Amino acid sequence: MRTVIGVMGGGAAEPATTADARHLGELIANEGWVLLNGGRDCGVMRASAAGAREAGGLTVGILPDEDTTHAAPDIDIPIPTGMGDARNVINVLASRVVIAMRGGAGTVSEVAHALKLGRPVVAIDFAELGPAFDPHRRAGRLIDVRTPEDAIAAAKRFLAEEPQ
Amino acid sequence: MRTVIGVMGGGAAEPATTADARHLGELIANEGWVLLNGGRDCGVMRASAAGAREAGGLTVGILPDEDTTHAAPDIDIPIPTGMGDARNVINVLASRVVIAMRGGAGTVSEVAHALKLGRPVVAIDFAELGPAFDPHRRAGRLIDVRTPEDAIAAAKRFLAEEPQ
Amino acid sequence: MRTVIGVMGGGAAEPATTADARHLGELIANEGWVLLNGGRDCGVMRASAAGAREAGGLTVGILPDEDTTHAAPDIDIPIPTGMGDARNVINVLASRVVIAMRGGAGTVSEVAHALKLGRPVVAIDFAELGPAFDPHRRAGRLIDVRTPEDAIAAAKRFLAEEPQ
Amino acid sequence: MRTVIGVMGGGAAEPATTADARHLGELIANEGWVLLNGGRDCGVMRASAAGAREAGGLTVGILPDEDTTHAAPDIDIPIPTGMGDARNVINVLASRVVIAMRGGAGTVSEVAHALKLGRPVVAIDFAELGPAFDPHRRAGRLIDVRTPEDAIAAAKRFLAEEPQ
Repeated sequence: MRTVIGVMGGGAAEPATTADARHLGELIANEGWVLLNGGRDCGVMRASAAGAREAGGLTVGILPDEDTTHAAPDIDIPIPTGMGDARNVINVLASRVVIAMRGGAGTVSEVAHALKLGRPVVAIDFAELGPAFDPHRRAGRLIDVRTPEDAIAAAKRFLAEEPQ
Repeated sequence: MRTVIGVMGGGAAEPATTADARHLGELIANEGWVLLNGGRDCGVMRASAAGAREAGGLTVGILPDEDTTHAAPDIDIPIPTGMGDARNVINVLASRVVIAMRGGAGTVSEVAHALKLGRPVVAIDFAELGPAFDPHRRAGRLIDVRTPEDAIAAAKRFLAEEPQ
Repeated sequence: MRTVIGVMGGGAAEPATTADARHLGELIANEGWVLLNGGRDCGVMRASAAGAREAGGLTVGILPDEDTTHAAPDIDIPIPTGMGDARNVINVLASRVVIAMRGGAGTVSEVAHALKLGRPVVAIDFAELGPAFDPHRRAGRLIDVRTPEDAIAAAKRFLAEEPQ
Repeated sequence: MRTVIGVMGGGAAEPATTADARHLGELIANEGWVLLNGGRDCGVMRASAAGAREAGGLTVGILPDEDTTHAAPDIDIPIPTGMGDARNVINVLASRVVIAMRGGAGTVSEVAHALKLGRPVVAIDFAELGPAFDPHRRAGRLIDVRTPEDAIAAAKRFLAEEPQ
């Protein structure tokens, strides 16, 4: 069974965030992990898939749509769900560790679902998540970091603690 | 078509919150609205359904399970979904206005889905929601209030703005 | 808890089938049961909701869409799911008995999900269901009838066997 | 984008069917296609994944559960959905062609969803599907074959007609 790492983030993201997303995708591929995201051809989804593919990695996109029309070009395995944002729950259930990049309500929903459903979360430069998640921070299930490199290091610690 | 108002909140809630939930349920029923929640027999779900039923209202529960075993006794119409927390998306899509009471990650996911999917949110005494939702506050789609009475007033304003 | 009975059938249906659907809706309302269907403004969904409402019954529609734009006018409580045909699973889970009227692939999927998930099915004039369901016929979980009146009688027997 | 082919079939299957499933998995891998199925460790799911992996292919399993506890050992990329049988819709949406092996109600639901949602279906030795699907047979969207080799040939024709 391959190690699947989820990258969550907005369809509309600032350049600094998409640059981080692309670099994060490369680092995930370099570890030999499969990158999973929401699959759409925009923002963090497009950038992280591009980075992973460029580094020779495998990418899976869990799409909200019924077909692959809006899939990012660097998604190897598109999974259209036809379920809209309910697919956010699948995004996190299918990830052994969820790495969240600064985003809007969609990304917040994914962080919330992950923590509720027992998946550890690494948040990169995402202070806006706010105090609602403080109990998960205190429990060590939500880790705040600043860079993609730090996110990889945190993900490795989570994987070591929870061998599947 | 009946006016359906969603009440979101934790399965584990403090006494002050469940007291508010029960009172909110009564007020919703008094308006002639249908109360919709997550249907389970605990916390805000049980309390808000009990309040609505006591006031002669109709209650709908969107359950995560495949059957009604864990439904609150005051749910008139249980809707088992078998979809776990993906049913949170249905909770908000089926509500014309979402009223959120202080809760954990599950409640935060519902607030996030609602705002992403265009449903207005009234949050009662829920400061922990944090800055991630500030753009929605500024856009007037997330209103913070202190009491069930204030929540009803805010919901009425949203309903008046968006006749269905 | 109210008794919820599901009526499944095609969005495109012949006049004889929609006439039966309307009559079935009336009979369900006359029993004091809540009628649940797929909620859309066409075929068996529109007709069965109209019949139930005319007889003073309560109707619930589990919609595939994210809003109520395409809901039938006689649906009292619309439940938009945003999940497309995955909502077919909810249609059957939320029904204590599923009554299926002759339909296409969508209706067949609902009969199949119901039987797989333990909900009894009464099929009205629906010989096309075919031999794939014969084991369920032999087990008494799928009953073939000819008229809405016979369907009500069969539903009553199922309800008597499985008090919830 | 990789070509993903879905293999549907029962968790409880006869030896002749699981032997066919294993052989079908090998043939799919030999074509360079990704094999997708329901991911569980039984019946057609386990056998088809084993055949594909043995031939060096890549396998994706769309699981009904919230985790991978019940995943077949030859699934490379497990996608837990936590949605129970609603994941059947994802099984078919994520497949460019659906190959169905003789099964029960679950498999019938997948054939029905596929045809409703526009995915072509090749059925191997599955006469029980019955007359409900005859319109799809006449439209050339459901093809009945006898062997895994014939199924591959039919899948190739569908792929040639519908370049993605």
